[in-house]
Amino acid sequence: MTDRLDPAVAAVRKAVRTAVDASVHSGHLAVAVSGGADSLALAAAARFVTARNGIRLHGLIVDHGLQAESLAVAEKTAGLLRELGLDEVRVLRVDVTGKGGVEAAARRARYTALRDALPAPDALVLLGHTRDDQAETVLLGLGRGSGPRSIAGMRPLDPPWLRPLLDLPRVTTRAACHALGITPWEDPHNADPAYTRVRLRAEVLPLLEDVLHGGVSDALARTAAQLREDTDALDQIAENLVPHKGNTLDVEELAAHPPAIRRRVLRRWLLAAGVPELTDQHLRSVDALIGEWRGQGGVWLPGGLVAERAHGRLSLTASA
Amino acid sequence: MTDRLDPAVAAVRKAVRTAVDASVHSGHLAVAVSGGADSLALAAAARFVTARNGIRLHGLIVDHGLQAESLAVAEKTAGLLRELGLDEVRVLRVDVTGKGGVEAAARRARYTALRDALPAPDALVLLGHTRDDQAETVLLGLGRGSGPRSIAGMRPLDPPWLRPLLDLPRVTTRAACHALGITPWEDPHNADPAYTRVRLRAEVLPLLEDVLHGGVSDALARTAAQLREDTDALDQIAENLVPHKGNTLDVEELAAHPPAIRRRVLRRWLLAAGVPELTDQHLRSVDALIGEWRGQGGVWLPGGLVAERAHGRLSLTASA
Repeated sequence: MTDRLDPAVAAVRKAVRTAVDASVHSGHLAVAVSGGADSLALAAAARFVTARNGIRLHGLIVDHGLQAESLAVAEKTAGLLRELGLDEVRVLRVDVTGKGGVEAAARRARYTALRDALPAPDALVLLGHTRDDQAETVLLGLGRGSGPRSIAGMRPLDPPWLRPLLDLPRVTTRAACHALGITPWEDPHNADPAYTRVRLRAEVLPLLEDVLHGGVSDALARTAAQLREDTDALDQIAENLVPHKGNTLDVEELAAHPPAIRRRVLRRWLLAAGVPELTDQHLRSVDALIGEWRGQGGVWLPGGLVAERAHGRLSLTASA
Repeated sequence: MTDRLDPAVAAVRKAVRTAVDASVHSGHLAVAVSGGADSLALAAAARFVTARNGIRLHGLIVDHGLQAESLAVAEKTAGLLRELGLDEVRVLRVDVTGKGGVEAAARRARYTALRDALPAPDALVLLGHTRDDQAETVLLGLGRGSGPRSIAGMRPLDPPWLRPLLDLPRVTTRAACHALGITPWEDPHNADPAYTRVRLRAEVLPLLEDVLHGGVSDALARTAAQLREDTDALDQIAENLVPHKGNTLDVEELAAHPPAIRRRVLRRWLLAAGVPELTDQHLRSVDALIGEWRGQGGVWLPGGLVAERAHGRLSLTASA
């Protein structure tokens, strides 16, 4: 470290301070640390910020047990966090099992363990996702094609999760670690092209940057932020229109709203009434009872339920 | 041609019939034809569909004059359209000039010429954009990062433009041409990596398909369609809240709406009042007069205007 504060260290601290100052918590904060550059830079900045505020800072390290060296990495990271002066440091061992790929299973196990380890009921867990992670998440969602929600990316605050670094590029967390003399762990999974996310990071995003003349991660993050505002607004409007559980829907009232609102109202109404899952096609068929009414029969839905229109109202009944 | 109708020809005809049947026009339709596979397959299908409906079909070919062979290509395409039996065929010569890259200038010149050549005031112009073009447009918009609108893609109907093929892949139009014995022109620009769109098509989309295990163009098109519904709904809600030109805005009323609505109302209000251009930062500053009010001064905007809050209302005045 030099006498002058390194600009990368300053940028990470500023991001963490802004996020912590804007959030409500009980004097306990946790930080989830993998041992990589993002989460170590986050932990160091969080220690700096919370030390001044009298907040107790807990370090949480998840050992997924997926690699032979995982326990050693976790213990070494725990040692680093103690050196940084965190108030408490815990290694959480998890079993990665269940459906989906190993990436999805590890993610589920990690989030469950972190939630279980919350130091207080209203404590927040700081996560080290950067702008580059956000860009990868948006691209993953684009490939899924399940609508605006899938490309809205991760939220800066989604209690108990707090992501202060979503506007910073990964290069800044690396520079911060370097300036602080911290050597981050390089996860071999991060170079394994068997993982979709690794290929997005290593192949797709650099190519997109080249073809679109730069600024792609930033552009993806900006668009994701506006998408979250848009979907939040539509969700809020729809929420106010959904009838209480068990009640029917007024067709004329619903027909006055644009399709984006109607579909959200129908979705909430059907799920609340016990339809276990809904495809886009189901929603379109139920919506046709409103917008393309020609006296058609009921729409059969999963869970043995039927949506029907009669006397200007939509109702949901068990199929015979 | 065989006795059995080729499935690609049938798919293109069905798409055109659905689009034409759903749209309002005066008995005149035009089809814009470059001579490539997409627009030739479209023209052939449009001739088939309109012949049965008594609609006069006009073929419009734009000669951009950018290539030595462009006039010859245009004349050959005109000949093809006459053979297909279109009622009238015109070659429109345009000058590609003005700001921006040559792609943008050619696009502007093309749309202006087509609009000027409308065979009747309420005639529609069929355009041959496919699902692959839509995917490229969404990716281009992602790189721009100017929010949901930039990735909502092209609309199926945006009078006078009608795009019946947005749900069909490019491979279908090629197969249709082949089945009909039509040899499309291969635009050398479509293989020139100097064009961003060409690189998205030739490099980025195939890599994304590989990394995300297929279905990317379809997924991008699906997401774009839902985004259009979402932005349409928010635009419609905002439209109803904008005061008449010259009037002030009620802060309390506006504050009750979510940010996505507020920003749209403010944007419309400011543009209608004569602010020539607005950045995201301008909008955020004006919105802060509502949501983060601490008695701050006016916000200076382009066009020599200042937005101010006083007595619970926002007003716009000329700066001194």
